[in-house]
Amino acid sequence: MFNILILNGPNLNLLGTREKGIYGERTLAEIEDLIQEEAAKLHVSVTMMQSNHEGILIDNIQKANGVYDALIINPGAFTHYSYAIRDAVKSIDLPVVEVHLSNIHAREPFRRKSVTADVCAGQITGFGEYGYIMALYALSKRLLDEE
Amino acid sequence: MFNILILNGPNLNLLGTREKGIYGERTLAEIEDLIQEEAAKLHVSVTMMQSNHEGILIDNIQKANGVYDALIINPGAFTHYSYAIRDAVKSIDLPVVEVHLSNIHAREPFRRKSVTADVCAGQITGFGEYGYIMALYALSKRLLDEE
Amino acid sequence: MFNILILNGPNLNLLGTREKGIYGERTLAEIEDLIQEEAAKLHVSVTMMQSNHEGILIDNIQKANGVYDALIINPGAFTHYSYAIRDAVKSIDLPVVEVHLSNIHAREPFRRKSVTADVCAGQITGFGEYGYIMALYALSKRLLDEE
Amino acid sequence: MFNILILNGPNLNLLGTREKGIYGERTLAEIEDLIQEEAAKLHVSVTMMQSNHEGILIDNIQKANGVYDALIINPGAFTHYSYAIRDAVKSIDLPVVEVHLSNIHAREPFRRKSVTADVCAGQITGFGEYGYIMALYALSKRLLDEE
Amino acid sequence: MFNILILNGPNLNLLGTREKGIYGERTLAEIEDLIQEEAAKLHVSVTMMQSNHEGILIDNIQKANGVYDALIINPGAFTHYSYAIRDAVKSIDLPVVEVHLSNIHAREPFRRKSVTADVCAGQITGFGEYGYIMALYALSKRLLDEE
Amino acid sequence: MFNILILNGPNLNLLGTREKGIYGERTLAEIEDLIQEEAAKLHVSVTMMQSNHEGILIDNIQKANGVYDALIINPGAFTHYSYAIRDAVKSIDLPVVEVHLSNIHAREPFRRKSVTADVCAGQITGFGEYGYIMALYALSKRLLDEE
Amino acid sequence: MFNILILNGPNLNLLGTREKGIYGERTLAEIEDLIQEEAAKLHVSVTMMQSNHEGILIDNIQKANGVYDALIINPGAFTHYSYAIRDAVKSIDLPVVEVHLSNIHAREPFRRKSVTADVCAGQITGFGEYGYIMALYALSKRLLDEE
Amino acid sequence: MFNILILNGPNLNLLGTREKGIYGERTLAEIEDLIQEEAAKLHVSVTMMQSNHEGILIDNIQKANGVYDALIINPGAFTHYSYAIRDAVKSIDLPVVEVHLSNIHAREPFRRKSVTADVCAGQITGFGEYGYIMALYALSKRLLDEE
Amino acid sequence: MFNILILNGPNLNLLGTREKGIYGERTLAEIEDLIQEEAAKLHVSVTMMQSNHEGILIDNIQKANGVYDALIINPGAFTHYSYAIRDAVKSIDLPVVEVHLSNIHAREPFRRKSVTADVCAGQITGFGEYGYIMALYALSKRLLDEE
Amino acid sequence: MFNILILNGPNLNLLGTREKGIYGERTLAEIEDLIQEEAAKLHVSVTMMQSNHEGILIDNIQKANGVYDALIINPGAFTHYSYAIRDAVKSIDLPVVEVHLSNIHAREPFRRKSVTADVCAGQITGFGEYGYIMALYALSKRLLDEE
Amino acid sequence: MFNILILNGPNLNLLGTREKGIYGERTLAEIEDLIQEEAAKLHVSVTMMQSNHEGILIDNIQKANGVYDALIINPGAFTHYSYAIRDAVKSIDLPVVEVHLSNIHAREPFRRKSVTADVCAGQITGFGEYGYIMALYALSKRLLDEE
Amino acid sequence: MFNILILNGPNLNLLGTREKGIYGERTLAEIEDLIQEEAAKLHVSVTMMQSNHEGILIDNIQKANGVYDALIINPGAFTHYSYAIRDAVKSIDLPVVEVHLSNIHAREPFRRKSVTADVCAGQITGFGEYGYIMALYALSKRLLDEE
Repeated sequence: MFNILILNGPNLNLLGTREKGIYGERTLAEIEDLIQEEAAKLHVSVTMMQSNHEGILIDNIQKANGVYDALIINPGAFTHYSYAIRDAVKSIDLPVVEVHLSNIHAREPFRRKSVTADVCAGQITGFGEYGYIMALYALSKRLLDEE
Repeated sequence: MFNILILNGPNLNLLGTREKGIYGERTLAEIEDLIQEEAAKLHVSVTMMQSNHEGILIDNIQKANGVYDALIINPGAFTHYSYAIRDAVKSIDLPVVEVHLSNIHAREPFRRKSVTADVCAGQITGFGEYGYIMALYALSKRLLDEE
Repeated sequence: MFNILILNGPNLNLLGTREKGIYGERTLAEIEDLIQEEAAKLHVSVTMMQSNHEGILIDNIQKANGVYDALIINPGAFTHYSYAIRDAVKSIDLPVVEVHLSNIHAREPFRRKSVTADVCAGQITGFGEYGYIMALYALSKRLLDEE
Repeated sequence: MFNILILNGPNLNLLGTREKGIYGERTLAEIEDLIQEEAAKLHVSVTMMQSNHEGILIDNIQKANGVYDALIINPGAFTHYSYAIRDAVKSIDLPVVEVHLSNIHAREPFRRKSVTADVCAGQITGFGEYGYIMALYALSKRLLDEE
Repeated sequence: MFNILILNGPNLNLLGTREKGIYGERTLAEIEDLIQEEAAKLHVSVTMMQSNHEGILIDNIQKANGVYDALIINPGAFTHYSYAIRDAVKSIDLPVVEVHLSNIHAREPFRRKSVTADVCAGQITGFGEYGYIMALYALSKRLLDEE
Repeated sequence: MFNILILNGPNLNLLGTREKGIYGERTLAEIEDLIQEEAAKLHVSVTMMQSNHEGILIDNIQKANGVYDALIINPGAFTHYSYAIRDAVKSIDLPVVEVHLSNIHAREPFRRKSVTADVCAGQITGFGEYGYIMALYALSKRLLDEE
Repeated sequence: MFNILILNGPNLNLLGTREKGIYGERTLAEIEDLIQEEAAKLHVSVTMMQSNHEGILIDNIQKANGVYDALIINPGAFTHYSYAIRDAVKSIDLPVVEVHLSNIHAREPFRRKSVTADVCAGQITGFGEYGYIMALYALSKRLLDEE
Repeated sequence: MFNILILNGPNLNLLGTREKGIYGERTLAEIEDLIQEEAAKLHVSVTMMQSNHEGILIDNIQKANGVYDALIINPGAFTHYSYAIRDAVKSIDLPVVEVHLSNIHAREPFRRKSVTADVCAGQITGFGEYGYIMALYALSKRLLDEE
Repeated sequence: MFNILILNGPNLNLLGTREKGIYGERTLAEIEDLIQEEAAKLHVSVTMMQSNHEGILIDNIQKANGVYDALIINPGAFTHYSYAIRDAVKSIDLPVVEVHLSNIHAREPFRRKSVTADVCAGQITGFGEYGYIMALYALSKRLLDEE
Repeated sequence: MFNILILNGPNLNLLGTREKGIYGERTLAEIEDLIQEEAAKLHVSVTMMQSNHEGILIDNIQKANGVYDALIINPGAFTHYSYAIRDAVKSIDLPVVEVHLSNIHAREPFRRKSVTADVCAGQITGFGEYGYIMALYALSKRLLDEE
Repeated sequence: MFNILILNGPNLNLLGTREKGIYGERTLAEIEDLIQEEAAKLHVSVTMMQSNHEGILIDNIQKANGVYDALIINPGAFTHYSYAIRDAVKSIDLPVVEVHLSNIHAREPFRRKSVTADVCAGQITGFGEYGYIMALYALSKRLLDEE
Repeated sequence: MFNILILNGPNLNLLGTREKGIYGERTLAEIEDLIQEEAAKLHVSVTMMQSNHEGILIDNIQKANGVYDALIINPGAFTHYSYAIRDAVKSIDLPVVEVHLSNIHAREPFRRKSVTADVCAGQITGFGEYGYIMALYALSKRLLDEE
């Protein structure tokens, strides 16, 4: 059974309560329920965390190494400037998938630049909370293929 | 039963025969087999086409309207400059997903800019041929939700 | 009697059926009727063609030389990157007028740059289908002046 | 009967006396005669003014509101930097057409940028003095259509 | 008793009559009434002028020196390119406050650049007509502190 | 009685002890005294916090929602790159005013760009500690107007 | 005997009274005395004018044609953005020399760009009021050579 | 005996009939005669094709693999934006030489950028039709060296 | 005896365990041993800290003032965007030396820009862990010279 | 018999001893032997010089005028910034060909810009030492054609 | 009696023999005669040197210190990139005037940037050889004023 | 015993005599004495050279190969544009350290870019003459480690 960590960055704790037009109706807790449900089907164990603190995200990326089999990260606005998170992602041996709920290419210009995407295995944008599940499928398949 | 069109742009007919380090070992025909297999499970009908001609791609995007329920497009190198394909995508009523086999953020700088992504529903990059299947899942779910 | 060719680029075959807020209610066929009506008044013979293929547009620009007295071109999205169309326009001896239905200056930033306008005699933007008729007036007058 | 104001910006009072290769042989007075002749045919009343003073142009754009039915403006070199004229054009309710005698796309790079075009209805460049008449046709048609 | 000059640049004479969504409902005269009322409370004498002419604004900035104790300026669109107004502001000994009614950071990109702000004491944006009163408070306090 | 939160970003705890030429003589505690004095006159309740931690600032912006009636923020150097703070500000329903003690337009080039200003109601720069009081006046007036 | 016009742009009327460190101690009137003295030696008749109004400068550049033999212009801050003055200079037949009192290359970055210099015969910067006299020498020599 | 394909891009079919000052007097057929003559001396078999269609060029680049020993390409205006042709060139195993008749460095700025040159073995510009023959020499020598 | 603080930024806790090709074989603890050894020889007392949290780094920079005689900082990826750390460094009275283990000029482009270097006394890059010792020598010498 | 000068710029004296992967195995002397051999066949007299000194290269370019019939230049790294060599090349009457051993388009970005190419007749890149011989052929043919 | 050194940079030894349309008909020797004549009238001793070698120019700028009273420099193409000459000019105590024969603002874009002008007292461009004499006048006057 | 060459570029011969505020009080000879003293302690033999000539610096970098064990270079202003020196440094097998006396990051913008640093082992900036000694320590340690 694979262990996968899902890390969510700043302001994602507000999901389902703010700017629903962009980010959707569900709260982060409700999204976690959906993910756990799907994870159960895939026989994958999922841990999900959120923080508004760049340092806490880095700490947890580092600690994921050796503990989890893969990492799904939605760095929120840190996507666009946190080279420190980028270095943390690059330093670990896990496959990492970057997920964005909204289509970042169709919003403000600053959101089109990701400083973390080039050190991830892949990126999924624009599918709302379903993006996490897509990442789960992709990582689950990859981990099985590698066995 | 949903009908989904998958359009592949220039040089994707060479998959599995060239630059396997970047694009993987499977030919486009083999990838189609995998996709059809998965589509069958999802009860989705998939048509797959490839062309090196920008005009043919545009013609087919236009014709997809009213015939298919959704479009998956891998515009290949046209991603980076074909505003004509962009306008075609924008002009149709179908949900469109942009797929790239490789992680375009980790390659040459010119590949980081997509002129088509902002008129698509979402973008999936870096998961090899599995990206098409992820797009299939996402569109299938979306079409079901909309029923 | 003067012969004038009107060339329309990609996605203009969708006029009147898509994005009417930007491009207007009339189909390309209806627009041609209006143009032919006006051309008749001016004693000008008009041929009108559309293609989504850059190569076909170039072929027809080249062939226009010696056959037509003037060219009206709406290169659609090719306006913004097709240096090949630009070179074709530059290579012929006819007066060429660039027409855009919408005001390209009031839309996405990429539409503000025309790579073809500097090799045309003039440019008309923002007058909808009437732009073709304005071009017809201008070319008709110019051809008469040159006689 | 419609009332249309034609405003000309700096150095256009020199038409027909300077740089005839670029701007043509006719003086501004001669051009006005041509325009009035054509206006008479269209049953349109035209008032034509010229000033080298940005402030006077702004005053007159503002005053045109409620007095004229439409505005034709050739802002001369102000086209390229006068955000104040741009704001004046934007603040009035009339349809405004920007006219340039020469093809500004085929001259110095600084002439390719218009800060006023995006708040006009359309732009006509490269047809010499005939551009004013084309604008007259376009506005006359538009005003008739709106009646 | 302090004398303060308030200078308003191009198109601000249209306040309350045009684009009320951006600039508010009150006319410049009504705004002056509000300001005078507040000035009276502060025992400050206020003179308020408006011009669409860059030269007249410069003349009045220069003349303010030695006559007024402070200057409040809303240069309108001149904010974004008038280095001549900038030099005038820099050349006088008075404290100068730049005021913008709207939040210039949330509008068109060209409005984010102020060529005058770096030679002012401070800048206030986004508070509508109340911005003038805030500037009045700030200058009144500063002049009192300096006594 | 209105409740207003004032948040101060990194290094503002050093006020009055460092770089007094730029930031003034008063400590943050002394500034708070001045603000509370003024708040009392306005019958406004003010809470003031400072942190060098981006995450703590984001946490507090989020928590302000529903607790306070308005927010005054001086994000310090985070102004120039913290899109995460920007997103937090955008996500809450309170009116937010951005304050800078110094005139950021007259310092290093990197200080001219604010990534947070476009999601605030307004911005006040260059008035030293009095800027907070100006923001208090403006917010107090706005809240009263909205009642 | 040659007639030479010297035009001075915005804020140059403040010479000798403001920012003497940059622009020198002499007033414009005193500078004119020095110039007239030198002009007398060269048997040249000099007329000197100053305006803060771009439009007045353009009017006078146009009127100089046919009346004067040469033009010396210090466009002040208009140097950096007035394409309208540039067009006026380009439209006349006289040799024109651009003069700046200070070394514009050693000041703010925006002063390094001159939009007028390329249509002048030459440019003199950094020699204070003596720059006018150098221009006088150069033009006087040129006019003599051309006789 | 080596087989070499020479591909010519858009508008090169007009050689010898248009813009002779830039591209020379000979038609493409005459150039082919010269090339065949030289090829015969080198005991090299040459096939020469031209198309205005990007897609046809890509098809032929792909098909050249395994059929020809080397490729000479003059992509015409596609040189400056066709990343699709670039990918095709990169995908084949043949040595490829890029040829331009004119010196692209001495013409319009957009011609200085080649998106294809970095995936070719080398580039020859400015020698007119003789450039093809130089490429023939270079490839012939290289193929001999590799035997 | 001098007290020197060495601060290490994000991901430097991973030294010796990750990306050894770039950062070397030694762990941060081993590096501290080497530094302490050398510090003992120089009769300097060294305190060494590491954090992935920008805010903690800022807190410690501020607290260093008055406690330590000098600061050595390796801000890791914060080097490239943390204006907040920059302001903290600028606000203290200690000499500060910036150290990077790798040669940041020979890596990704984003690493070439340091937002902190201009407020440090000097910068040392490319000498691995020995860079800290070089900084120690330099600061020790400087402190001795200043006594 | 034609006399042709071949000038080589900085570091080309190291050919065959350093970075053979990029520049090839042959020393400059060996390359000269190859060139002389080929020159003999063409009945061309070749003189070959190398210098690391920009000034010496300029001196020799100037002196080539009237002495040689053509110039082949490989300016090495001076290609990318020496406007002085550019001006020397432009000042002489000989046809000049620029040669680069490696494909400069496939290396560091700074090598893609040539400040000398636009004043040469043509440029040859990527053919190793054979590039000189190609230049010899081209110049020999051109000189014969001109006879 | 003042001693003034005139230094000329690369390719200025070709004056009067090449590109006379831009640089004039006179050789450098003839220009020196004119200068010496004028210098005699001014009771100034002039030494004039030319070199194509950046290093020799720097050597001579350095040696001028303490030997000459002022320096006139025409750095030729070095103007646009030689920061080494810039540093040499900055390092000496003499007043330095930069002279260009042609109007560098009306030529290729790269000539508009001078890296040396900001460390000179002033710059004179566009007056041909008379520029040196203007510099002589200006320096002579300045040296007299300083006595 | 190791042999180390120290190369100094343009204007460094003026050390201790010019701009002491930036570069310090000691002459180059005095600095050499300090270095030799320290070198003796390290049992390293040091040779020190200076030239204002780029070509001489390149010659000496090339000759250092095989003669010296390491190179310390302060390229002065050549740091910012001499790709020729860069190529020379890259072509030799010695470890090279780049030293700058002043903190180049805290001066003019052009000094922040080093074209040589990426081909050096490391860079030391801002420690005055002590930077050479730091480089000596680092190289000495590295050479010992490699034995």
